[in-house]
Amino acid sequence: MSMNPKHDQLTWSRKASEEAEAVSSLSCSGHGVAHLDGLVLDGGLPVCECDACYTGLDCSQFVPYCLIDVDNGNPFFLEPFWRQNAENSAVMMAGWYRMGYEFADGSLESKQLEKAIRMLHDTVGNAITKGRYIVFGTGSTQLFNAAVYAFSSKDSGSTTAKVVASVPYYPVYKSQTDLFVSRKYKFDGETMSWINQSEDSTNFIEFVTSPNNPDGQLKDVILGGKNVKHIHDLAYYWPHFSPIPIQLDEDLMLFTLSKLTGHCGTRLGWAIVKEESVYKRMMYYIDQTTYGVSRETQLRTLKLLNVVLQGNGRELFDFGYNVMRSRWERLSKLFSLSKRFSLQDLTQNNCTFFHKELRSVTPAYAWIKCENDEDKDCYSVLWDEANIKGKAGHDFGSESRYVRLSLISNRQDFDLLVRRLEGLISQEMKGVCEPSNYEGAFGNLTT
Amino acid sequence: MSMNPKHDQLTWSRKASEEAEAVSSLSCSGHGVAHLDGLVLDGGLPVCECDACYTGLDCSQFVPYCLIDVDNGNPFFLEPFWRQNAENSAVMMAGWYRMGYEFADGSLESKQLEKAIRMLHDTVGNAITKGRYIVFGTGSTQLFNAAVYAFSSKDSGSTTAKVVASVPYYPVYKSQTDLFVSRKYKFDGETMSWINQSEDSTNFIEFVTSPNNPDGQLKDVILGGKNVKHIHDLAYYWPHFSPIPIQLDEDLMLFTLSKLTGHCGTRLGWAIVKEESVYKRMMYYIDQTTYGVSRETQLRTLKLLNVVLQGNGRELFDFGYNVMRSRWERLSKLFSLSKRFSLQDLTQNNCTFFHKELRSVTPAYAWIKCENDEDKDCYSVLWDEANIKGKAGHDFGSESRYVRLSLISNRQDFDLLVRRLEGLISQEMKGVCEPSNYEGAFGNLTT
Repeated sequence: MSMNPKHDQLTWSRKASEEAEAVSSLSCSGHGVAHLDGLVLDGGLPVCECDACYTGLDCSQFVPYCLIDVDNGNPFFLEPFWRQNAENSAVMMAGWYRMGYEFADGSLESKQLEKAIRMLHDTVGNAITKGRYIVFGTGSTQLFNAAVYAFSSKDSGSTTAKVVASVPYYPVYKSQTDLFVSRKYKFDGETMSWINQSEDSTNFIEFVTSPNNPDGQLKDVILGGKNVKHIHDLAYYWPHFSPIPIQLDEDLMLFTLSKLTGHCGTRLGWAIVKEESVYKRMMYYIDQTTYGVSRETQLRTLKLLNVVLQGNGRELFDFGYNVMRSRWERLSKLFSLSKRFSLQDLTQNNCTFFHKELRSVTPAYAWIKCENDEDKDCYSVLWDEANIKGKAGHDFGSESRYVRLSLISNRQDFDLLVRRLEGLISQEMKGVCEPSNYEGAFGNLTT
Repeated sequence: MSMNPKHDQLTWSRKASEEAEAVSSLSCSGHGVAHLDGLVLDGGLPVCECDACYTGLDCSQFVPYCLIDVDNGNPFFLEPFWRQNAENSAVMMAGWYRMGYEFADGSLESKQLEKAIRMLHDTVGNAITKGRYIVFGTGSTQLFNAAVYAFSSKDSGSTTAKVVASVPYYPVYKSQTDLFVSRKYKFDGETMSWINQSEDSTNFIEFVTSPNNPDGQLKDVILGGKNVKHIHDLAYYWPHFSPIPIQLDEDLMLFTLSKLTGHCGTRLGWAIVKEESVYKRMMYYIDQTTYGVSRETQLRTLKLLNVVLQGNGRELFDFGYNVMRSRWERLSKLFSLSKRFSLQDLTQNNCTFFHKELRSVTPAYAWIKCENDEDKDCYSVLWDEANIKGKAGHDFGSESRYVRLSLISNRQDFDLLVRRLEGLISQEMKGVCEPSNYEGAFGNLTT
């Protein structure tokens, strides 16, 4: 875009720029961040929002033996990339920016953003978009039920479609489907339990998540036959998390900005859809439930994707892959010392994107198993013994012997997690597993 | 907020500011607007998006006898206000702005925005917020079903709640409720048809829209009894559209930014909720269906509401009221000349906000009735005879003898609408109602 020639004479936008730069200049002691809409105490600048284990107005105070919250999937590991690309990723919105409901073509979707999404998939080679429709959602979260709706029958007299997923599965597939108590569809458990019944007249809608959340495994469909529809959730099918062995061309594929650029607060996901009739039903769903995705969200996403696409379109993925590789290496070395805890087994794989024969394993989450008979509730074991809050295995329809830990937090939080796990595993190696014995090593156990 | 002292040395935000100012400097011949994410032809700046009846790359070409589209409710009448307040309404987002899922307090909602919303209701005096919960939605659109969900029964064996609304009603109440084909609730027609049956064991959820869309009437609940829940849609209960005779304190009240500031593309609505249990169920619905409202949306809304609140908090409403008053005066004068078409009858009312004994009538829509026996389809009459596209009466559950025309478009579009209506009504007065006779007055009838 050509620049305003009078660039030293910014007018209406100067004040907002100054505000944003003033807020971003708050260092928060290197242990937090301030945002424009942060809480403001008695006027002045917004307060620092501190990283885990730091507190105080300027985040300078370390909290010993604080709770390590790796329950959530906040992808703060990419934040440094965006700070490195500050100039190109900033976006300024005028007060009159897109007040109307529709874009110029009458649609609810930015054609420029759609174009950027198609270019990105072409660059990465993870999904075919040519001749395919694209639907935006308020996060891929909104698109789960949009897809289930689109795949369920329009006929009033039809049977209820069974929505299924493979254990361990992302919990929202079930909880969101349950929410609507629809006559058209119903979450009906684990895919495998229907393996011999999928040829009859029952309609199935199978969620296929690859790489899988929580365990990072590449997955394929399980049910087949004309009565089965598949929703491919490909949130993690990007080069920083996964080998890209094949350019996928499924009937319905879901992606999300959250795990691509790390902007999960932005709430933008998209579906790539083969059939026009399915596309139209998804668009109707989005139209009726939210009347499209926030235009601010679409504009910012466009800006961010343009940064991802700049140069050879590899910079973000190189950055992300290198971070995730070193994290997994540290973690797998550590867990190789333990008999009590094990990490999921992920094999190295060919990788088209990075043109390497073998790429390292870089999952977004550790899917940890407590191997000792008595450690039936692995979530509680980590919480009680190391003050680590993961996400319990049973949330994923799995055994309580498993727990998911996020590996995509910021560097500081990841370092704290590793140190805490080191403490836990070093106690196991010393054979002194009673809480009273290792409490001293970390000081105060209270959260 | 205190300014960066080195305000002549903007760093990372300068480029985005320059881009936005360059785009805003495109005049589009005064008949259109360019946006940052508009279509770009062969590099360079985004193209102009033209107002109705203008075309060409710079929107300089007038299209004679073009279609006047007053079907939608785009509130462009407020755009000049935001251009007048350009400096304070601009917002700059850094590339690392709120990447995480949650705010600092773990919630999905900006506490600063919640505070601004409460202050605004206090200033305007249209709703009580003290001690009430607030839920954000992706437009009040998302909150319709969140409220229906929250009010329907949790018990699995219970009967299906009947969702009802008074004719004429906003069509999305029905279409959105129908979409989910839920076992818990079902749209079941017009409120009045259940007036004698509301005391039995059936659960009712009644939408009450005041001022009503489409006709601007102030409405009260119709059904009573312990089995009836009410959703008060107060989208238009602001001083530019309505008298504010009373500070409402209903169990569940819905508002939207769209009709308050005119930013309907932003997709932000909120519910004010009395009961904690209802609030929690609504929050669960939002959590499960979109995981909250886009953080960009929340930040921009905060900025906009701070502008509305500045000074004595009346500037926006004064501006909007004056525009809408003069529009209604023109229109009612015009329709007083017609026997063929009539406008809805709205009585003047006391108005607390403007401290006037009587305020003028300022509805957002004209709800027009075709009075002649043969004009059974009023929508088609306006389309065929004046190339005006309204929204048909039957969309609102009403007779086809009615049609809704939006009065909240920009000045140019409203002027065109009035001129077209003048042509239609002047033909009626001359007694020459055949299309062939008045075609000449407007030149080419093709759209």
